[in-house]
Order: sequence, then structure tokens, then C-alpha cells
Amino acid sequence: MSNTKNFHMTSEEFRRQGKQMIDWIADYYETVEKYPVLSQMHPGEISHQLPLDPPSESESMEQIMSDVNSIIMPGITHWQSPSFFAYFPANTSGPSILGDLLSSGLGVQGMLWATSPACTELETRVLDWLAEMLQLPEKFKSTSTGGAVIQDTASSAALSALLAARERKTNYQTNDSGCLGNLVAYISEQTHSSVEKAVKIAGIGRNNLRLIGVDEKLAMRTDLLEKAIEQDLVNGLVPFFVCATIGTTSTNAMDPLTEIGHICQQYQLWLHIDAAMSGTAAICPEYRFILNGVELADSFSFNPHKWMFTNFDCNCFFIADRSSLIKTLSILPEYLKNQATESGAVIDYRDWHIQLGRRFRSLKLWFVIRNYGVNGLRHHIREHVRLAQEFAGWIRTSNDFELVAPAPLNLVCFAHKKGNDFNRKLLETINREGKMYFTHTIIKDQFVLRMCIAQTHTQAQHVLQAWETIIKTVSELTI
Amino acid sequence: MSNTKNFHMTSEEFRRQGKQMIDWIADYYETVEKYPVLSQMHPGEISHQLPLDPPSESESMEQIMSDVNSIIMPGITHWQSPSFFAYFPANTSGPSILGDLLSSGLGVQGMLWATSPACTELETRVLDWLAEMLQLPEKFKSTSTGGAVIQDTASSAALSALLAARERKTNYQTNDSGCLGNLVAYISEQTHSSVEKAVKIAGIGRNNLRLIGVDEKLAMRTDLLEKAIEQDLVNGLVPFFVCATIGTTSTNAMDPLTEIGHICQQYQLWLHIDAAMSGTAAICPEYRFILNGVELADSFSFNPHKWMFTNFDCNCFFIADRSSLIKTLSILPEYLKNQATESGAVIDYRDWHIQLGRRFRSLKLWFVIRNYGVNGLRHHIREHVRLAQEFAGWIRTSNDFELVAPAPLNLVCFAHKKGNDFNRKLLETINREGKMYFTHTIIKDQFVLRMCIAQTHTQAQHVLQAWETIIKTVSELTI
Repeated sequence: MSNTKNFHMTSEEFRRQGKQMIDWIADYYETVEKYPVLSQMHPGEISHQLPLDPPSESESMEQIMSDVNSIIMPGITHWQSPSFFAYFPANTSGPSILGDLLSSGLGVQGMLWATSPACTELETRVLDWLAEMLQLPEKFKSTSTGGAVIQDTASSAALSALLAARERKTNYQTNDSGCLGNLVAYISEQTHSSVEKAVKIAGIGRNNLRLIGVDEKLAMRTDLLEKAIEQDLVNGLVPFFVCATIGTTSTNAMDPLTEIGHICQQYQLWLHIDAAMSGTAAICPEYRFILNGVELADSFSFNPHKWMFTNFDCNCFFIADRSSLIKTLSILPEYLKNQATESGAVIDYRDWHIQLGRRFRSLKLWFVIRNYGVNGLRHHIREHVRLAQEFAGWIRTSNDFELVAPAPLNLVCFAHKKGNDFNRKLLETINREGKMYFTHTIIKDQFVLRMCIAQTHTQAQHVLQAWETIIKTVSELTI
Repeated sequence: MSNTKNFHMTSEEFRRQGKQMIDWIADYYETVEKYPVLSQMHPGEISHQLPLDPPSESESMEQIMSDVNSIIMPGITHWQSPSFFAYFPANTSGPSILGDLLSSGLGVQGMLWATSPACTELETRVLDWLAEMLQLPEKFKSTSTGGAVIQDTASSAALSALLAARERKTNYQTNDSGCLGNLVAYISEQTHSSVEKAVKIAGIGRNNLRLIGVDEKLAMRTDLLEKAIEQDLVNGLVPFFVCATIGTTSTNAMDPLTEIGHICQQYQLWLHIDAAMSGTAAICPEYRFILNGVELADSFSFNPHKWMFTNFDCNCFFIADRSSLIKTLSILPEYLKNQATESGAVIDYRDWHIQLGRRFRSLKLWFVIRNYGVNGLRHHIREHVRLAQEFAGWIRTSNDFELVAPAPLNLVCFAHKKGNDFNRKLLETINREGKMYFTHTIIKDQFVLRMCIAQTHTQAQHVLQAWETIIKTVSELTI
């Protein structure tokens, strides 16, 4: 006999709680500036307020939201504050939150075309739109030999590129035989740590990763790249992969794509381009030059979840020859076979990344592109670059600070002339105060402050406030 | 001069559109049964309705939602339909959608403890709750040597386990030196394809993966496992990893954990347990026995996004010795250094998985556990098992059908006695009709129908309707 009692939230309750949550979120954005940007909690302070055991019986949404307000909120570092200048951003926006909500509601798992054709076909189309917006070469479009897929992060995209490169170089034999210890990959000293992580994961080994030196702009030196490749060839090793970066994490350095691309062609190396944050700038014609040379690449990725106002996670990974990726990652057990897959007429995105299951992530991207319009997106990117350049100007004309690296777009790396200890103290003091949050890097033993101006809601006044906070804190620390 | 024009959705508009979206979702769940469960679209039908170029100017949410209704909805396969019996489910629920919405709204990126202490500390606590709910041994709790992390999928969890196993076996040298081609992993013929994929990704090579034969219940034969290990040792290879499954994808087979665990201890192999769907059952004391032997495992994972009413993606990956995982995946570039990390007093979850960035996924899990209560969750799991057992009973007493595998929980594998062609036709006819959606597998050359009864909203009437649809279609096909 069926037990009719059930513990599911009713439709009425969902409507009521959902609308309250929407208001909660709108209120949050209206008041986000009242919070310290960097959470001021100490280790364990949140934990100690959470019960040790799960509740046996149902608790109301009111109880839960009350704990969100009192326990969780003090433990939030506010990535959506307009005074968040740390790392690279992880932006949201109205249309993105709504697209993500629709995705949660539909609860589609798009591992195969058949498990929701719209999930696959919308993704393919929106990524072709992005290829157009970034003026990527035709080969990266689904209508040509390539195509694209939404991955979670640039880390996973880099790993996927590395694996496809590994297989292409070894005639797709490494998947069967395992690594042989002779493949060599190349990055610059400034390349993101995710590529080193990928090299370890893929069984290549860190000893087979060459960190190529950089020039005064912190971009990869192609003379050193070529020298390293030649040396490895002499030693009987097999160079197979280069990752070039457009906008390094530390300083927004731009590796010379065209020169690197020619070297890759000459030595038959896979060229992957990581443009995680800066790639977004290329949707503005005047910044499109940063991708000159991308036509020589085998794969390219950037993160709309960084600078294109689309909720994490949303990395777009473009590949020039999709068959190399699919041959590398495809698995087809019986329980996933279906007529559509067997027809060959469809894309099954589960063969394009590490995971099998996947969310309907193109909805949020579609919502963002349509609700902003390409010109709307361009407007905000230009505004961020303008504000960053203004800030860089203040640094240049300041007597106390110096620019430590070129600031080609929206990341400004600078340091007070009083040296590392002072800069570290300056950073920690300001972040502890909570009015803004920024982070650091180290360049040639110098402790460097990073201001990344790219948060959805950052406006002129926030950058000005940040500068005033910095000036004021310097004078307080100097007394 | 600042340009004050902006293209961001206003707060008022977000409130209005957000509330409409909540109503849209509630309406969707109220009417989900009117849609064909499996989308009836043909390849390209969605695509052809989508513009080739992105819009230059902003489009209204009304326009976008109108396209959702007319273009996207016909291309949805309804994973949230109570008549979805295919694959394993990817469930949502009211509290989960709300928790996910809060996560989208807060837009926290929790790669480090410092980038939102609440994101890390809530995750740790909720996973300790789950360890308690599943009665996992102490070693899997954060208060002991181990701990847990939310990963996207069981595929990524298996890869993480495999990597930690690879490093532990080679004294953490493979990360540096690369794979040497001598490590061997073991799974059963019925293990999920994700482990084979992980073996390829990790550079182990498919030739070093042994597919161990299964017994009449389709569970791994430990005599064959031991024999394979012995043979590999004789050949100078290095056995290092076994993945045992609790609830295989094809038939819900249960590998004998205790026997496998003892073999792993004897030969010093890492034991990973994949309990992606069935693990959830262990929160009911009467089904907890399925995890007997988990105390011998090094790692364990299950997916609340399958059977625990929590939105995709949400895999919970437990590890007995967290240091082995962290040593394997840790990377600490300068730009991620911070005081909290250096103090050693905090968890930085970016060292626990492949990716760097991460969403605040514990919110939805916390919302689900609290809003259902542990007893509420148990109620629905029991109800699903009861319905599946009832369905299995109908098969057993039917003259036309036979059970093809034991149905220990909520997956029923069966076949009509008329053979493969008939069963294939039966499946395709029913799925094309759209009243329900189920999928198949092949067991010893037999085409087998799979009914997985685990969708959040599936009730007695839906299972009865499914059975009636099957009977009716059989008689129509038999005329």
C-alpha cells in the first residue's frame, strides 16, 4: 500500500520561498557594499556554529535562511562586491543568475544529445556565436572541422588540450599503452599553475615540463622556447605541447602567439592558448589584436565566468580538430548507446571533457549574450579597461608607487617604493579593514600588488575609493 | 569622464523576472507530465530555429523566455518527469533549487578557505554529516585523518582516487617523473566506463587495466581478481588500484567489498568504492549493509545529485587519508598564497580536485538535508525501493517477462522472452511514444530493459502506468 505522506516541498511553498529568495538576492546586491569584502572570520568560526549532527526531522526554510543570515553571511568573501579587485573576478549578472536558475529548475543532464537535444544544440550555437564575437578562425566553429564545448574551468580545458595533444603525438596509443616518459611540454615561467597540474595528472611528469623564461614584459621568450625544444630533440625526447597565455594571472602578460605558433608548426607541437580572463576583451574590435596568431592554435579557451558576467562555472574551450579530442576522450559503453549517437548526426558532449554528466550551462550564456547584446557587453568591458587605465595613470604619476608590469587591459600591477615588507603590510591592512579586497603576486622577488578591475558592478567611484584607501593607508602606516 | 549608461539588469527588473522564473519553474513541475519524457526532436531541429549570429543589441527577458517556451522546451528530455526511469536519475527538489539559486546569487568562488570561509567550512561540516548518515568509518571524517569534498561527478572522483593511488604507490614520484608503464589497475567487467577513462587520462594506459570477470549476480569475482594480481606480479608489474562498485550502472550489482578489501590490504592496493547511485540507500539503516566492507576502502564516492534530490552537480568524495590526495593535487603559486593557507589551520579545497575554481555547492546539500530531515530522505528512498520491488514482483510473476539480474534496490533489469529484437523494438516504441522513458543495457549478449525507480516525484501511479504501457505495447507489437 502506498504511503501518501511525503516530505517534498509543495509547489505553493516553492513559489513563496523562491520569490523570497529572489528578493533576498536583490537585497544582497543593493547592500553588498556594507559588508567587509574579505570575510573577517577566523578558521573554525563558522564551523563552531554549525550543529555536529544532521537534523532527523524537517526544518523550515525560515530556519535555514535565518542561519544563512547569521552564520553563513559573515563567512562570505564578497566576489560580487564592486570593490572586489582580487585574483581574477568570478562575475554574475541578472540574466546569468536567471539562466542558471532555469537550468537548476529544468534539471537536465546533457551527457548525450538524446538526453536533451536543446542542451547540446543551444550550446553548439552559442559557442559558434562566441567564435564570431571573438573573431576566431573558422576552424574553431562547429560548421568546420572544430567546435567548442563548455567546460567547468580553464584547468579542465588545459587538461583536455594536453590529453588530445598527447594522443595526437603518439597516434592515439598512449591511451592504450600508457605514458612512456618521453613527451615534453612547454610553458612560460608565468603560465598558470593549472598546466603544471595537468602535466602531473596526465602522467607526463613535472620533469618533462619546461618553464621557459620571459622577457621584460613577462611574456614567453620564443628564442628560449626554440632552444629548449632543440635541446630536448637532441636528448631523444618528444616535444608535443605548448601552452601560451593571453593575460597571465600574475600580471596579464601576453605571450607572442604568432611566433610561438610558427615554432609549434615547425616542430609539430600542439598549441593551446589560455585566455581565461583576457579573452573576453577580444569581443571589442579595438582589443581583438590580443588574439592575433590564434589561427595557428590547436585549441583556445576563455572563461565567461570571469569577465563576461556569466556565473561560475563557464569555461569555453575551442578546438580546431574536434576528432582529436573525441578520439581521446570517447567511451561508449552499452548503457549509453542510442539511435541518435549511432546515426553520427549529433554531438555527444560527454566525449569532449573529463566528466560524463553535465548541466545545461549554455542557458546562462545565452541569457547573458542576449540580454546585454554584444554592444552592451562591449560597453562594460571598455569601461573596465578605461577605469584600469585611469588607475594605472595614477600609479605612473605617483611619487610613491611604481608600475611593475605593463597594464595592457584591466589588471594593474604596482608596488610602493618602500619595498616588500611595506607592500605586504599595506595589502594586509587594507584587506583586514574590508573596504576593498585585492591580492598580490611576486615578480623577480618583488612583492607586487594586483588590482584587477573587472567586477560586474565596479564603477568609477569604486576605483577612486580604492585609490583613496590605498593613499590613506600608506600615510597611516608611514606615521 | 564616466559614461553613466549601463546595460546591467536593474534590481527591480531582476525582482520581477526572478519571480516570474520561480513561477515558471513551479508551473513546469505542475505540468511536467504533459510533455513527452524523451524529446521527440530530430538532430538539427533546435539549431535551425536559433539565429546564426548573436544579437548586437539587448533583447528583453520576455523575448528570451518566449524562445525558451517555443524553441528550447520541445528539445528537453524531462529528467524531472516522474515517468523518467532511464539511466540513473539526476534529481532536483524544491530546497535544492533554492540552495543552488542562493549559490548563483552569492557568486562565491571557494578555491581557498580565504575566498569564502563559509563555503569551505559548511562543506566540511555537511560532508561530516553525510559520513554520519551513511555510517562511514571515522577515518572518512574531517575530524580524523580523512575528509571529503564535493566534486562534480563520480568520474572526477574516480580520477582523483586513481591519481592519489598512483602517487602513493610510487612514493609521489610519478607526478615528477611521469608514468613508467608498469602500474596496473583492476575493475570488473561491469564497472562504469569512467574508470577506464580515468586510466587513460592518468597515463596508466588501457592495456594496464584488467577487467575482472563477474559471478552470476554480475559482481566481481575475487578469485579472478587475486589470480590477475598474482599474474601481474609474476610479470614484474605493479598492481596499485581496485575500483569496486556498489550498484553498477547496468544492473545495480554489488561487488563484495570485504573480500576485495582484504585482497587490497594483502597486496597493498588502493581500494576506491563507486556507489554513485546506490550509496544514498545506506542512509536507511536496513540498507546500510550494502556498505559493509567500506572500512577497508581508501576512498568512497556517491552522488547526491542522483538519488538524494540534490541538483547536479554534486558528487561526495570521501578519502581515508587526506594527505595522500592533497600531496597529489596540491599546487601553490604565489598569487594564491595567503595567511590562512600558510597557517595550516584551514582546508583549501582546490587541492582536493582537478579544478582550481569551485562553486558554493554545499548550500544545496545543506538545504536538502535540513528541509527534508534525515527521516524525510529515508522515507522517499524506502518508497522508491518499495515501488521497484513491486515492479520486480510483477516481472517475476509475469509469463512474458523475466528478471535478468537481481534487483537489490531500485533498479529492475528485465527482458521479454521474445528475444533481443523484440525488446529493442519495445523500448524504442515506448520511448518514441513519450509517456515514459527507460533505457537498456546488454548482459551476456542479451538486450535488457532497465527501469530505475528513483526520480524525486515518482509515485505508485507512475510505476503502475509504466507497467501498463509496457503490457499494452507488447500486445500491440505482438498483433
